[in-house]
Amino acid sequence: MSNMREKSQSNFDIALFGLMLDRALSKSLQAQLSGALRDLLLGGQDFSGTRLPASRLLAQELSVSRTTVVSAYDQLISEGYLRTKIGGGTFVVDQLPHLAPHRTKTVAHPEPPQAWLPFHSGVPDQTLFPHRIWSRHIERAWAKPDTHLIGRPDPFGWYPLRQSISAHLSAWRKLDCSPEQILITSGASEAFDIIFRGLLEPAQTAVVEDPGWHVLRTVLSAVGAHVHPIRIDAQGFDAAKIARQASLAIVTPSRHYPTGISMPMSRRIALLAWAKQQNALIVEDDYDSEFRYQGHPLPSLAGLDGLKRSIYLGSFSKLLSPALRIGYLVLPETQLSLARDYISRFGSRASLIPQPALATFMNSGEFAIHLRRMRRTYAKRQAHLISELADNGHLLDISPDPAGMHVCTPLLPRLRRQVTDKMIANFAQNEGLQLKALSSHCVLPDPPQGLVLGYAAFDERTLTSAAQKLSQILLQLSQP
Amino acid sequence: MSNMREKSQSNFDIALFGLMLDRALSKSLQAQLSGALRDLLLGGQDFSGTRLPASRLLAQELSVSRTTVVSAYDQLISEGYLRTKIGGGTFVVDQLPHLAPHRTKTVAHPEPPQAWLPFHSGVPDQTLFPHRIWSRHIERAWAKPDTHLIGRPDPFGWYPLRQSISAHLSAWRKLDCSPEQILITSGASEAFDIIFRGLLEPAQTAVVEDPGWHVLRTVLSAVGAHVHPIRIDAQGFDAAKIARQASLAIVTPSRHYPTGISMPMSRRIALLAWAKQQNALIVEDDYDSEFRYQGHPLPSLAGLDGLKRSIYLGSFSKLLSPALRIGYLVLPETQLSLARDYISRFGSRASLIPQPALATFMNSGEFAIHLRRMRRTYAKRQAHLISELADNGHLLDISPDPAGMHVCTPLLPRLRRQVTDKMIANFAQNEGLQLKALSSHCVLPDPPQGLVLGYAAFDERTLTSAAQKLSQILLQLSQP
Repeated sequence: MSNMREKSQSNFDIALFGLMLDRALSKSLQAQLSGALRDLLLGGQDFSGTRLPASRLLAQELSVSRTTVVSAYDQLISEGYLRTKIGGGTFVVDQLPHLAPHRTKTVAHPEPPQAWLPFHSGVPDQTLFPHRIWSRHIERAWAKPDTHLIGRPDPFGWYPLRQSISAHLSAWRKLDCSPEQILITSGASEAFDIIFRGLLEPAQTAVVEDPGWHVLRTVLSAVGAHVHPIRIDAQGFDAAKIARQASLAIVTPSRHYPTGISMPMSRRIALLAWAKQQNALIVEDDYDSEFRYQGHPLPSLAGLDGLKRSIYLGSFSKLLSPALRIGYLVLPETQLSLARDYISRFGSRASLIPQPALATFMNSGEFAIHLRRMRRTYAKRQAHLISELADNGHLLDISPDPAGMHVCTPLLPRLRRQVTDKMIANFAQNEGLQLKALSSHCVLPDPPQGLVLGYAAFDERTLTSAAQKLSQILLQLSQP
Repeated sequence: MSNMREKSQSNFDIALFGLMLDRALSKSLQAQLSGALRDLLLGGQDFSGTRLPASRLLAQELSVSRTTVVSAYDQLISEGYLRTKIGGGTFVVDQLPHLAPHRTKTVAHPEPPQAWLPFHSGVPDQTLFPHRIWSRHIERAWAKPDTHLIGRPDPFGWYPLRQSISAHLSAWRKLDCSPEQILITSGASEAFDIIFRGLLEPAQTAVVEDPGWHVLRTVLSAVGAHVHPIRIDAQGFDAAKIARQASLAIVTPSRHYPTGISMPMSRRIALLAWAKQQNALIVEDDYDSEFRYQGHPLPSLAGLDGLKRSIYLGSFSKLLSPALRIGYLVLPETQLSLARDYISRFGSRASLIPQPALATFMNSGEFAIHLRRMRRTYAKRQAHLISELADNGHLLDISPDPAGMHVCTPLLPRLRRQVTDKMIANFAQNEGLQLKALSSHCVLPDPPQGLVLGYAAFDERTLTSAAQKLSQILLQLSQP
């Protein structure tokens, strides 16, 4: 009880000393102060019986005259909010006078939390994230920050995090690089800003995969790049199809987005040869290679290249949360000075706040444990989704994917004759399903028809009902 | 003791279960595991006597065969790292065998912390920041995250933070806006991306102040804007001098950067009239208005305008830390849908991690307390710096500035006859002083000559010795 009293006392003092009186306002300082006090007492917290700071002390803290404070106190005594005690001191009364309700600062959200809709792809299940452990890592990092944390920030990001990432890449992606080659970013979109504004001459030509990540085209045209999409085949991207001069190829060799095709070694070698012959750069977007359920992930293309002409793009948004806004670039030695120059001119955009915690989270092994748990969970969820969709085998080409967070299921002729994937996506939208049409990832004519179904963020019950809804839609649309 | 033992036991288990074995590597899984175990035991932490997990359990965790684990254990028993006990169980020996030192993951920094050099402007004194309180706010926010925090993030940023900012602006800058008009960014550079890529037609003309923030020109040309600098006068920016069509004026009315001039009301009204007549937008960059030491801050230009044609640009980097990477835009109602569309295409870049903590830090009043403490400290430091430079009154026009984190001191004729401000800045650089030449903030001919001296981040001892160094340089350079 006395603890509660002390607590509310100190909350009260903090709030009181935290008041901001503004001499620029027409309202008098005394009126501002009594108004603020009134708001505070009616603000929901129970301050009954707490003692107000001595007028001299509060006057000093707010840098106003003592008279201002005294008359504000008197005002509220006359209104019945405060009382003085024999022996001195001003206190909050136990029974606040009843008043008409009035505006107080609220921190309510305007709308309920927006859940991810079923089949939304590329988002992890954040309810399974070890939030308590993670929050302790952040708290430890900042309670007594390392002098490196409060000094001049390293423009490439928190060095120990870059060390952890380099260790992770060498163990997991067969990519050997020094921490100095790693640049922490706020995500893929900033990464492409850096590449196009910092590393390349203006208005360069980039070849991209079609189908491919639709955001990429927006980002590239915003930085003034000429974009040349190339239709992929059953083996993914084919460098032999690059018809014209280009200074950059942006690819997803581990798992083509969104089809999930893994680029065979022969294609990788051909692509590296193209880059060498054209003196071009390759960007390897390795967006979710950590989630592999069977077989061996092929070593990264950048690793195969020895980071001579390849830039490796990584992210933590699929591992922890999209809201983390932490990704990274691994750059060839030859590109480091250009990148440094870019950052010195534009500044870095990645917040330092999560970076030391992410480093200790990785070094403690908790990162790997979480990763492996998620891998098991996501594998189960994929298997569950596929079994729930089994009845649609005559409409969709449903085959298990050895990796990733979504499956891409091509439409079979019987369905394709009746409907397009975009029509299905629209119908699904109305049923509260966030599936994507494969063709909406394309710009070239005659796009492949299929459905991109994200499953990682959804438990089996949600996937079951979502699969049932989808099956009904497909049945309905497949009728001639 | 038993606690220590338990602690090292659990550290050991975490590290062990956190191992990542990679089937893609040529090295066998058994060799990888025994190697990792060896690294762990020699990794610096004392694990002597700790018990290893049962082979079945570890095998399951790492999804390898039990044989792999057993043979890895046997390998290390034969090497003398592990021993078995009668009654079963495998343990770490008390005396590790001596071995040649070998590589272990280090988290050492490659270089000592980079302190800000004296006179570096625009950085707060982070050693005075209440890190412990702040870290508790972050920990509280994420230990059991609000469902809004782990759901689909609001593209404009954490709503309660936007509420706190709106309350702060209305109390402190006479700027009334709804939280819906506030967009959280990763800083000014992203803010201008949003304005130029999202709100304006491509290749628009922007008028800017000369002298002005040098980074701004870089950012504007990167987004393809045509930049027209206008030389300011003793009253700051003058809309009457805008000679040509422009769709945007970017100004710092509260405190012109870097001269500190506050734009008088007449000029503000003229600028708003220009914007109306040209159907143009105004960006008010209010980069450090919170630090005012005397007099009344004029209400914000955007407030005067009622946010009809003005965009207000705010930041927390000057208040807390540049590494926070949290700023915000306040947008006119008419611009909201364009901004929403931009964010939906490019995504937001501000990390969500610090946002809930920043909101509670502001609501608790601790933000205002810190602000007022810093204001007192910075005012003292400015006064101290000015008194330390008093002897140079015949060379520099040193007058107190009622606000800000730096002083801008014009060169007096006697000095100007001998030297330019850039020459002084170069000399100072060699002496370890990070002062900026006023003329380096200009692109127009005949730039004004002066020194920009940041004082906020430096204690009085540092300022004294820096001022002495500077005085010597000035004395030396002022000799004919």
